[in-house]
Parts: sequence; C-alpha cells; structure tokens
Amino acid sequence: MSLVTDSLRFEVTRLGPPPVASPMAGVKFVADDARVLFHGSLEEVRAAFEAGETPPSFEKAGPRERLFFDPATLTCGIVTCGGLCPGLNDVIRAIVLSLRHHYGVRRVLGFQYGFEGLIARYGHEPLDLTPDRVEGIRQRGGTILKSSRGPQNIPEMVDTLTSMGVGILFVVGGDGTLRGAQAIAEEVARRRLAISVIGIPKTIDNDISYVVRSFGFKTAVAEARRALNSAHIEALGARNGVGLVKLMGRDAGFIAAYATLASGQVNVCLVPEFRFTLEAFLRLLQDRLARRGHAVVVVAEGAGQDLLGDSLLGRDASGNQKFGDIGLFLRERIREHFDGLGIDANLKYIDPSYSIRSQQADADDASFCLLLGQNAVHAGMSGRTNMVVGVWRGEMTHVPIPKAVSQRKRLDVDGWEWNSVLASTGQPPDLW
Amino acid sequence: MSLVTDSLRFEVTRLGPPPVASPMAGVKFVADDARVLFHGSLEEVRAAFEAGETPPSFEKAGPRERLFFDPATLTCGIVTCGGLCPGLNDVIRAIVLSLRHHYGVRRVLGFQYGFEGLIARYGHEPLDLTPDRVEGIRQRGGTILKSSRGPQNIPEMVDTLTSMGVGILFVVGGDGTLRGAQAIAEEVARRRLAISVIGIPKTIDNDISYVVRSFGFKTAVAEARRALNSAHIEALGARNGVGLVKLMGRDAGFIAAYATLASGQVNVCLVPEFRFTLEAFLRLLQDRLARRGHAVVVVAEGAGQDLLGDSLLGRDASGNQKFGDIGLFLRERIREHFDGLGIDANLKYIDPSYSIRSQQADADDASFCLLLGQNAVHAGMSGRTNMVVGVWRGEMTHVPIPKAVSQRKRLDVDGWEWNSVLASTGQPPDLW
Amino acid sequence: MSLVTDSLRFEVTRLGPPPVASPMAGVKFVADDARVLFHGSLEEVRAAFEAGETPPSFEKAGPRERLFFDPATLTCGIVTCGGLCPGLNDVIRAIVLSLRHHYGVRRVLGFQYGFEGLIARYGHEPLDLTPDRVEGIRQRGGTILKSSRGPQNIPEMVDTLTSMGVGILFVVGGDGTLRGAQAIAEEVARRRLAISVIGIPKTIDNDISYVVRSFGFKTAVAEARRALNSAHIEALGARNGVGLVKLMGRDAGFIAAYATLASGQVNVCLVPEFRFTLEAFLRLLQDRLARRGHAVVVVAEGAGQDLLGDSLLGRDASGNQKFGDIGLFLRERIREHFDGLGIDANLKYIDPSYSIRSQQADADDASFCLLLGQNAVHAGMSGRTNMVVGVWRGEMTHVPIPKAVSQRKRLDVDGWEWNSVLASTGQPPDLW
Amino acid sequence: MSLVTDSLRFEVTRLGPPPVASPMAGVKFVADDARVLFHGSLEEVRAAFEAGETPPSFEKAGPRERLFFDPATLTCGIVTCGGLCPGLNDVIRAIVLSLRHHYGVRRVLGFQYGFEGLIARYGHEPLDLTPDRVEGIRQRGGTILKSSRGPQNIPEMVDTLTSMGVGILFVVGGDGTLRGAQAIAEEVARRRLAISVIGIPKTIDNDISYVVRSFGFKTAVAEARRALNSAHIEALGARNGVGLVKLMGRDAGFIAAYATLASGQVNVCLVPEFRFTLEAFLRLLQDRLARRGHAVVVVAEGAGQDLLGDSLLGRDASGNQKFGDIGLFLRERIREHFDGLGIDANLKYIDPSYSIRSQQADADDASFCLLLGQNAVHAGMSGRTNMVVGVWRGEMTHVPIPKAVSQRKRLDVDGWEWNSVLASTGQPPDLW
Repeated sequence: MSLVTDSLRFEVTRLGPPPVASPMAGVKFVADDARVLFHGSLEEVRAAFEAGETPPSFEKAGPRERLFFDPATLTCGIVTCGGLCPGLNDVIRAIVLSLRHHYGVRRVLGFQYGFEGLIARYGHEPLDLTPDRVEGIRQRGGTILKSSRGPQNIPEMVDTLTSMGVGILFVVGGDGTLRGAQAIAEEVARRRLAISVIGIPKTIDNDISYVVRSFGFKTAVAEARRALNSAHIEALGARNGVGLVKLMGRDAGFIAAYATLASGQVNVCLVPEFRFTLEAFLRLLQDRLARRGHAVVVVAEGAGQDLLGDSLLGRDASGNQKFGDIGLFLRERIREHFDGLGIDANLKYIDPSYSIRSQQADADDASFCLLLGQNAVHAGMSGRTNMVVGVWRGEMTHVPIPKAVSQRKRLDVDGWEWNSVLASTGQPPDLW
Repeated sequence: MSLVTDSLRFEVTRLGPPPVASPMAGVKFVADDARVLFHGSLEEVRAAFEAGETPPSFEKAGPRERLFFDPATLTCGIVTCGGLCPGLNDVIRAIVLSLRHHYGVRRVLGFQYGFEGLIARYGHEPLDLTPDRVEGIRQRGGTILKSSRGPQNIPEMVDTLTSMGVGILFVVGGDGTLRGAQAIAEEVARRRLAISVIGIPKTIDNDISYVVRSFGFKTAVAEARRALNSAHIEALGARNGVGLVKLMGRDAGFIAAYATLASGQVNVCLVPEFRFTLEAFLRLLQDRLARRGHAVVVVAEGAGQDLLGDSLLGRDASGNQKFGDIGLFLRERIREHFDGLGIDANLKYIDPSYSIRSQQADADDASFCLLLGQNAVHAGMSGRTNMVVGVWRGEMTHVPIPKAVSQRKRLDVDGWEWNSVLASTGQPPDLW
Repeated sequence: MSLVTDSLRFEVTRLGPPPVASPMAGVKFVADDARVLFHGSLEEVRAAFEAGETPPSFEKAGPRERLFFDPATLTCGIVTCGGLCPGLNDVIRAIVLSLRHHYGVRRVLGFQYGFEGLIARYGHEPLDLTPDRVEGIRQRGGTILKSSRGPQNIPEMVDTLTSMGVGILFVVGGDGTLRGAQAIAEEVARRRLAISVIGIPKTIDNDISYVVRSFGFKTAVAEARRALNSAHIEALGARNGVGLVKLMGRDAGFIAAYATLASGQVNVCLVPEFRFTLEAFLRLLQDRLARRGHAVVVVAEGAGQDLLGDSLLGRDASGNQKFGDIGLFLRERIREHFDGLGIDANLKYIDPSYSIRSQQADADDASFCLLLGQNAVHAGMSGRTNMVVGVWRGEMTHVPIPKAVSQRKRLDVDGWEWNSVLASTGQPPDLW
Repeated sequence: MSLVTDSLRFEVTRLGPPPVASPMAGVKFVADDARVLFHGSLEEVRAAFEAGETPPSFEKAGPRERLFFDPATLTCGIVTCGGLCPGLNDVIRAIVLSLRHHYGVRRVLGFQYGFEGLIARYGHEPLDLTPDRVEGIRQRGGTILKSSRGPQNIPEMVDTLTSMGVGILFVVGGDGTLRGAQAIAEEVARRRLAISVIGIPKTIDNDISYVVRSFGFKTAVAEARRALNSAHIEALGARNGVGLVKLMGRDAGFIAAYATLASGQVNVCLVPEFRFTLEAFLRLLQDRLARRGHAVVVVAEGAGQDLLGDSLLGRDASGNQKFGDIGLFLRERIREHFDGLGIDANLKYIDPSYSIRSQQADADDASFCLLLGQNAVHAGMSGRTNMVVGVWRGEMTHVPIPKAVSQRKRLDVDGWEWNSVLASTGQPPDLW
C-alpha cells in the first residue's frame, strides 16, 4: 500500500492518570508505554537509530494494569454509522462481552441509527445491551443498532452523552464518522469532561490509513470472488462473452485487486489508483476477445472517474464525493464499441455490492472483530481517547484519529500487490 | 399453476417400428404404451370414465425393450441453446454416460454455441464427448458446449445432421429453442430421414407447459433466497430501509413466488400474473414503512409491464419480447415518491440474475438432471421424436413439443401457491 | 420406492361435524371429500374402474370451508420429538403463523423436550409461541422446542392436554413418535374428548410409508453430497485412496442413493435394501483400486447388518432397533484385507451424521415445510385427527397414522432409482 | 504464540553468485540483502541497538535483480507430501505460472505421490505442468500431484533430480517433509550440484516455527466453525445435550483456539498446550449442564495425551508420533461419568477432519498461496536453497529449513490468544 510516512507522530491522547487497578485476572498486562515499530525493515530502523532518531512507532494496544474509569460506576455507549459491513454485530458483541466479563461494566447503551441516536429529538431510544441481548447476533449480517449516514450536531451529541452519563463512547464507522468522533472528542475536551471516544475503523474498502486491515474486508473479498466466478462462467458460456463486475472501492482498489488475485479468472482489473483511457481499455478487450473469445473485467467504483466528465455532482449525506457510475458507463461504452465493429459481444453485468455488504463475517473476520472490540475496550478503560484501534505488522495498535483520517490508504501501483494483479490478469502495466 | 387443459392430446411421434433389442440388463422396461394420468383427482378421472371417455394422459418415459436405433452404428449430437441455467453440464454428462453405459453408443458430438454449431459456415467444430471429457463437469456452472441465442436456418442444420450421420439430436433449450427443434423434426420428416429430435426443456423460470418442474429452477430459488436475505439485512440496517430485488420471471413468477415462500422475509411480491397499479403499490410500501420502518420488495422481470408504456421495443435474438426494466423503473418511482413526501427512504437495489444463472446445480437438481438425461436417451433410442422429456406428478413423461410450446405455464393467482405468498407477505389480494 | 399396496384404505378420522364457517378469505376451499389418486398409471386406474372398483386414493389436504374448532377460543400445542432434522423450526413457524394469520388463533403452546413436555412432573414449561417468538427461527437449524426420544405415559399426556385446554396437538416426529400420537388420539377417543392430533412426519431417511417426501430429506442429501465430495478429494489425493462415508438410513437407503446420484463420484453404494457379502464387496473394492487407484464407498447405517453378528443389542430410547456400526466395521475389514495383501490402502473415514441433521433447511425444504405446516393447520381446524399430512404425486394429502406407520418405505432394488445408482457407480447388480 | 527466540540466526544458504539478469519488467526488485525485523517491539529493538547488537531478522522475500539460474535452460520440479491441506493446488498453480510468466521457464515437472515420485522404481511418471494443465485446478481441493507420507531414500531422489536435469525443486510439505528437503539439499551440497531446494511449509495446524501463518489454516478454521455450529445446534436440541468436536492440532491448538474465537459457541476448549485432568474437566462439564442444560466441547487431537496411558504406539509413516484418540476417549469417559450419575446426557460426537482437509482454499488462502508460490519462485531463481518461504509481521520472508523445523510453534497459554479463548468459553484458567 502507499502512504506518506514522513515525520510520523502517533501520540495518543489520554484523559488523565489512571487511578483504578484493573480487575482482570490471569492476563499479561501490556506496559503502558509499549510501542510497535512502524517499519518492519531492519535497514530503515537501523538508519534511524544511527541518525540518533527514534524510528516511528504506534502505541501498542492491550489490557493495562491501571484504569481511568471505575467499572462499578461506568456507563458505556456504542454507535454504528455509515453503510453495512460484515462484522458489525461481531464488534458490538465483543465490546459488550469484554466490558462485562473482563471489567464488570454492567450498563452499555446501544445508540440506534448512527449519530441520529445521539440526538434527542430523533427519539431513537438506546437499546440496553446485555450479554443476553447480543447472544446469537454474530450469526447474521447487518447491525442490530441500525445505522445512518451523515454528521449530526456535535454539541447536541455531547449533551446526550453527558445527560446519560456515558463514560466511553465506542464509534464504529468510516472516514466521515471518525471525523465526527474526533469532533466529539474535541468538544468533550473543550468542556473538560471525562468522556473517552474510541473508534473502530469500518471501511469495507480497507482504505483507512495506518491500519493494515479493516474488519469485513476479507469477507468482502470472498463474496466478491463468488461474483467473479459467476462472471467467468457467464463469459465462457457465450461467443464473445464479457463478464463485467463492479466492486466497491471509491478511493482504493483493494477489494478489486484481492478478489482478482483470489479468483485468477480476471483479464482486466481497473482500480482508482490506475489511470487508463477508454480507448486503450477497449483495444485491450477487443484483442482479448479476438484471441480467446471471452473476458472478465473488474472495475472498482472509483476507477476511471476522469472519464465520466460532468456526471460528478457534489457530495452525499456522509460527505463523500458522489461518484459517477463507472460500471454502467463501461457497460454502455463496451456495447457501443462492439456494435460499431459489428461484433456481437455478449456482455453480462454484475453489481454485487449489497450482497457483499450484508454478509455475516467469515470465521477470520469474526475472530478479528473480537480482537478489535476487546482492544477498544482496553483502550477506553485506560483513559485513551480520540483514537482508533488498528492492526500493524501483526500487532494491535492505537492510532490517533487525526492520523487515521489524514489521508486514504491506497494501492501502490509500483508495489507487489499490483504487480501480482498484472501477472494474474496479463494486462499491460499501462493502459494509456 | 394455471393451464388450459381442454381436450388434451399428448400423442408422441415415432420414427418407425423398433427392430432392435435393447442391450440394457437388469432393468424393468417400461411397457411401450404405458401412460401417466394428467389429472391426480379421483373425481375428475372418475367423471371421464363415467362419461365413456379416456382421461387425458402422457406417455410414460423410461427404457424400452426394443430400440429403433442400433447402438453399434449410432452417432448422437447434443446442443445447448439460450441463457445459462444451473444443470446444463449435468444434463450433457447424463446423456453421454447413458448413451455409453446403458447402450454402448460410442460417438457423441457436442455442437458448440447453440444452433450456430449446426451451421457449417460458423466453423464451430463439434466436441467429441467421451466419458472422460464429461468427468468433473458437474462441479461447475455454465455449459461446456457454450450457447447462443436465436434461430438458425433449418435446412442447413438438417444438412449438417445428415452429413455428420447424426441419428439422435438432443436439444437443451427454452421455448424458442424448442420451436426450432420442432422445425428441425418437421424438416427431417419432410425429407423422410431417420433422425430423432429430443428436447430437454430448459427454463429457469419454470414456465414450460405440461412439465411440472424444469431443471435449475430449485437451484435458482435457493440462490434467489440468498439475495432476499441480503435485501432484508440491508433494509433492517437503515431508517426506512427498502430492499428491492429483481428476479427472473418474464411470463411467470415462479422464482419470485417460491423465493418469497422460502425466505419469509418479503413484504411485497410482484409477478407477471398479478396486475397492480403503481399508486396502490406505493401506498402499500409507504404504509409498511410507517408501521415497521423497513420493507423488502421482490419483483419478477415480467411484472408490471403495462406500467412502462412505450419502453417495450420489439424482440430479442431468441424471439422473446423485449421487456422494459421494471426493477429500475420501480427504483426510480419509489425514490421519487418518498422524496416528494420528504421521507428519506434508503433504497438498496439488488439484481442477482447472472449470479443465479451461473450456479452449479444443487444436489436435487443434479439428480433430476441425471433422470432427464437418461430418459431423453431412452426416448431417442426407442425412436421417439419431436418431443421433450418432462415430469408430471412424480413420473417422467414424454410431451410432444407442439404441446410443450403451445402456451406458457403461469402461476394461478387463485391457487394455493399464490395464496401462500399472500399469507407470507401480508400483502392484499389486489393492489389496484 | 417399494410399498405393499393391496387393498388400500386411507379413511381419515374426524372428530365430528364442522359447525363453524372458516374466516379465510380470498382462497379456493378444497371440497371436503376431494381425493387424490394413489396410482398415477392410466392402466391401473382404468382396470379398477372396469372391474367396478374405486381405485385407491388419499383424502386431499387444504383449507375447508367449514371448521370443527372455533378459532376465537382455540388453544393449540406443538411438540417436536426424536433426532434433529433440517426444517423443524420452519414447520413450527408455519403452524404458528397459519393459526394466527389464516384463522386468528391466538394461543399456541410450544411443549418442550418432546413428549416429556406433556408430562407435568418433568416441569418443562411450555413456550408461548407468538408470531414474534418464531420470527427469524428459520435461519437456524435444530428446534426451538428442543426434543427428546422415547415414549411417555399416554394418559398423563392426555391429562395435560385437557388441563391446558388444548384443542389441536401438532406432533412432529418419526415412526415411534407417530405411534405415540396414535395412542394419544385413541385415548382421546376413549375419553370422548374433542382434541385433534395431527402429525407432521419427520424422517430424515424419507422412509415413512405413503408419503413421497419428508421434510429435511433434500437438505440432507445436499449436505451428504458435500461429504462425498470430501471423500472423493481425499481418495484422489493418495495412492490406493479409499474414501468411506457412512450416511443415515436405518431401514431405507434413500439418502445414500440420492447423494450418490447427485455426486456422481461414488464407486460402491451399500444400502439396507441391498444384501451383499463382505467377500464380494472387498473383491470389488480391490479390483477398483487395481484399475483406478482410488475409490469412494458409501454405506447407509442400516446396510449389512447381517454381517455384524451379535453386536445387535436391543432397542434405543425411541424403540428403534439398535444398529451395529457398519461404518466402523467396514473400516476395520477394509484395513485388514489390504494389510493382509500387503497393499498400503489409504482409508479416510467420514461420518457426517450430526453435521447433516443440524443444518438449516435449504430453500426447497423451507417452502415445503411451509406447506406442511399450513396443511396440518387446515386439517386440524376441520376436525381431522389421528392423521399425518403428506405429499403424493404433487398433491398435499391426509394419511391415517395407522397407515403411515404400518410399514417402512424402502428403495425398490428393481426400480429406476436403484438402477440409476448402479449405472452411476458401475457396481454390479449383485455383490454376492 | 510461544517460541524460544534466543540468539536467532536466520542466514539463508545460496548456491553461488547470480550471474543472470532478471527478465522481470515493471517491478520493484528487492535489495538482495534486505531484512525484516524479528521483533515488532520498539523497546526490544532499541535495546539491541543500544547494546551494540543487530536485532534478529529474516531475509526478505521477493524478486531479485540478478538470478542464479538461466530461465531459458531451466527445468523445475514440484512435489507435494503428507496429508491434504486446502490450497495445495493454488500453490502448484502459482509456482507454474510465476515460472512461466515472470521468468519464461518452460519445463516444470510435477512429481506424483510425494517423495515416491522422485524414486524411479515406483514408476510414477511426472506430469508436464503447463499453464493449461493448471487452469481451473484452484476450484477444487486436494492436489493434482497426489501425495504420500513418509521419507524416501535421499541419494536416489537426488539421482532422479540429476537425471531429469532439475534445477529447482519445490517441496510442499510439513515438518517431516521439510527434514527430507533439508537432507536433499545437504546431499546436493555434498555432490556439489547446482540444485536449489525450496520449501513451502504445509501445516494445517499452523505450527511451523518462525512462520506466522501457513496456507490452509484459515480455511480450516472456517470449516471447523461450521462443525462447531452443528455441535451447538445439536447440544441445544436435547436435554443435557453435549456437542463434542475433535479438531486437528497434534502439537498446537491453533485451529481449536481460533475456531472457538470465531464461533463464540464453545464452553470448553482443550488444546495440547493446556494440561488438564479428566476429573476437573468432567466436573466443569457437569456444572455447565446443571446450570445451562447444554454444552459444546472442542478438543484438539493432541490434547490430553497424558490421560491415554499406554495407547501411544510409536510413529506413523511420516515419522510423526502416533496419537491416542482423545476424542473417542473423552466420548466414552463423558458417557460413563453421566451414566454413573444417572444423568441422561445426550452426547453428539463430530470429527470433521477429512471434510476440513479436502476443502478448496477460501479467498484469503487463495491469494496467500499465490504469494507463497511466487516468492518461492523468486527465491529459487536467485539461487537460495535449503529454505522455506514464510510470512512475518506482514512481510514475506526466507527461513532456513533447519530453523523452521527446529521446534514446533505452539499457543502461548499466557498470551492474548489463549486469554481470549478463556474469556470466550468462560472456562477457568486451569483445569487441574
């Protein structure tokens, strides 16, 4: 992946000194200041030390020996925002069970319909999230807390937290949501309140910076592979069969790239990080059909936006830039192109987006969500705030929200992932 | 289901007397003239006998003691036409293995790309379908013979059959394809050739007349249920969430109806057999959202065509009437409607068509395809022609092609299936 | 399948005249005495009429215009007995929803842990089965009512029904359970009570007489096919690889036979209806390994019991005869045999029984369970008793319990199903 | 996980200087001596530098600018050994395609039946592994090269490599196989041959040292979760229902632990790293049944071996210690225990081993296998030998075989993974 990594500082804010001893038993506590190296390369780290500098690093996640909050009197809240993503219910359950079983916290409020649930006038009553209430919720997709898009008034939300006595607010959401969480944390600081705001980054596109993997991503790739297989079967079944699949990926093509690698049946993979011209693409496709008689094309939703001209129309309710539909655009252009040539191309278009988003987390995401939820609880209990829980080089970490939202993580088109995609598809390194 | 059943005659054409003894051993042969009752009702059958009439019946399928063709010198051909349907490879394999293992036929040609494969000038060489060639093909969707849509020149196709010495042609396809098969059989008769044409009806919509079930239908319903579940999860996850799923079903809503019954999560099911007005539908949806906050709507592609006005534009390559896209139409009308009311409806649209068509046959369709293929072989070997293999009241039958294509089978909106759909969805018996 | 069909009488008992008009609207009622022909063959039915006899027939299921019970005051009960089977929750839900939505019955008791739930001293409180309580239960296997094996005291159970005011008891279970239901109905008759006892036959083996298909069977075959595929992959992966799969099927080999047909990867299929000697089986297996290097063997649990000698030890809690474990027996014999020959056979043994029984109903079983539940409700409301709901030649029927339990349905080793198994496996028609 | 990490040296052997320029285009080459840090902790790495030491590190995998072998004249071989594991075909395909498409190598031999394929007298002809031959093989489990267990004569195998002109031998296998690969590499060195031996570690148990993840492990956990869900449904369905599942894991309980975390339905998890007494276990189970009425127990095959006494009988063909069957042992002990108490426990035993091993790789393992295969090729082409390809903290690495087989990786019962298992199951930290 490609990230700007100059002068990294990943200092996490704390609400204050932790006066309470943790009740957790039989566990190795993590030293309060333990840190995880940003770089895995011996050479880079050696260079830093030789230059007398400390190499960049993250705070390490995990249970701390001393807590900021007293579990006996603590109330927590959870809110899920934005589009569905496999694993939301797993994260909710993990937070509730860790609060109860690791710490003995008894009151957990589930705010409904995203940030709306924190605005009194919507009238969405919070759920009482007991262990019984979250039993069995992992077996289904979606979120029992429901969701909504878009920001809400920050002071009003802090008013709700105060009036309900919430000590830790867990916010599960993407880029826009995390900016909202940051704003809440800042308003909390302004009012000098003792409320921790802990984010669990949710991006099915896997494009949150400084977090190697986001929950639901692997499940999404697995379901996307199913769609690619359908496209392959359809393409094979007809003369000049073209299977065209649009996948998620607004700014980053991780889903499209990994589904391509997992499938091995894709002939052209188009992602936002890879610029191409319509002409070069159509030429490649035409050549492939001439040689083999069928083709599978995958396009991430954010790819080729420059081709769409003036169809870009502002921002949606979550503040994300609206995207022109590259899938439908390519479908029409491909049809026109082959009609113009008198070739009877059989194009089958598949857009599996909602089938992917609504899946139950697969086994690997399920245990990953468990870790995310548990470490979010550990972070909140120790008094951290304005941070998300992440994973880096196999270790769970704390990442300040301002860092996490500072830029999108993107595929490095000069890196090994994209190189493997090119090797797998056989497409040329540029389509220009 | 609803069929006009007056004065039924299901007499199957035979090429001539069967001079050859069957080599099949250890099997109970079916009497050459055995017949299966059309009606299952004691009252109706009794009434016929009391009126001195023979109640309508089908010829029963199965192995015959005497054959028209000599297996030692016979060449057979197989062709698959039209859109993909789960089970095509299963049918191909069943025919090949039955010809070889039941009868000892050694030469089976697989014509490629549908009827195109029977037209010399396309240059599609037929595959040599040996048992080894069809091993393992059941484990994937699609058809190893590929397919195409649309008719081809009948005399040219018969020329090919003659020049290649084909004795039995197995044609796997839908309504239009079967009309083509009938034309081939008629041209064969005109030329007084000894070529049998046996159809295996392929309609994922399950709308072939006088055939209770077509292969792939149950697999399609199972995969459609997956899409409905996604729609349900998505609808539940947002305020005023609406999951809208478009399913196959041009003339008959069997897939939509059975997926609705299997899922139990659908609130409105719209099929071609059920007329509705846009206003009544939108009122119902609005009411549902007001009461419950979320809804799932299923629409078969042939439903509500009268609402689409002048978007109906002739016929496609297979001769089927082109349909306006009721799914996209409803999506726009629903959005407009709720926008007009100032209600922020969250509509998620799912069109799983190609994901359904490309599936591998499920276990039940797999063994059903085996039966269809075996009985098609038995029928051809005994010299039947211009017929399809069907199933009726649990028995495998022979149905003359002219009967099978005489009308489409449709859901009976006064019958128990549709009544169960109404009970399951809670929608009113009319939406007018 | 093979059934003794001489002198069939399928008269269903009724509690009395139906004084109440049905509240169901918009539905075609079934004539009270409508009947479904037992035979589908024109010849057999014609012969009966010509001999002046009425051919055997079943009472047709479906909603009646007049009811025996008044929905306004009716209490119903449901109980599930014996081993798990895919679809139990679907049947429970269908009964509850049909009682409520078709008839307006408001009180449905769910007796827990099988017949134990009807015995006061066990202290299992019945569940209150509301529509809300059964929402979402189809998405998981098992039964929310739990189950148990074995009979209970009949008069005590009738006492419970009386004291709780139950009008209709729905009993979901197999052979032994249905005998219990019959005994309850007989005790009810002895006491001249107005309590209807309606059975829904549950046999994953599909071996209830006069019922063409039992719920869960198709799901079981699908899951069994998965196990066969694993066995095939394992057998292929090693020299002299043998995949040995034990499937359900105590008296009837339907699951083994249909899984074999659906899979196409089985080389020997052993079922209770097919007698074989160990020597002939081992010779066949040895020959197969010599020719092809790998083999898949499927054995139904009731096959080859005569080979096991004195390991048969009475009856289990449900009164079923205990079976020796033919799977483990064959595993040992195969190992010994090839060890004795100095051949290093790689045997992999798979017993997927509980993985099969615990599955969620597949889409086809799900809608079938809906029909069974609805028609059980219609039958009970009209005052039928001591009967099960069945399906015959595509029609839902009523079958008197004494008939349904009079004999086990078995595979006909001279019929087309077993013939297809032989064709698919290539095994000889006798292994003696 | 728990590894002894003192004084780590991970120096990889090279056959000689690389005289050939790589033909790979458009790729970032990895510096020949690039290294990946063993430790991810800033504190540990800092301490090493401050002590004037180089912290331990692995050689980084990836394409090198200069090659040892000339692709134009190179012949490669692939062999798969030991039990099946999801992903074998993916690894084979990745090696073949990378050799062809990245380097232009045209001759790749597939040795059949494990090391037997390298011993002339077995007569197993190697397959010619062309790109066409490996197309579509990812869609099925197992290995197209077949496999066998156990060592073979080392000099004979090297003779075969020499006589067939093999330059790089890719060996896919576990602990015992890799010791064999090491012996081959050593014999090659003794003879001063230019043959590279590159291992791809295959252990479904994920217990190879210094390799964070082995292919197939995640797929195995996903399939194991399915079995746990069946056990949960079965346990719930009966009074005192106990679902007992035996999973793989001879020396390390990773599959059992991760399946437990992914499922959330397990009450007792027993792994080799966790010692327990039968009495404490039975007491815990009895207590659970008394409180909740049902329980799920998972046991890894290597757990509790000390309880089995003298049933341990030497080593199997692969040289692995034979294990007593802890699953069957616990099944009998549990039955005895509750029989003795007069409690009617309903125990359902599930052993899904072969169903797990024979799965197709899931999407995540599929792309992981691609990386493993590609990096094995890069390593071999650059002249590395006697090493395996691994992954460490998100980077692909080279690990000398002697290191990889020096000890088994095991769960750390004081670490967070096991702590999460305890939190998820609620079982006490010791069962003694």
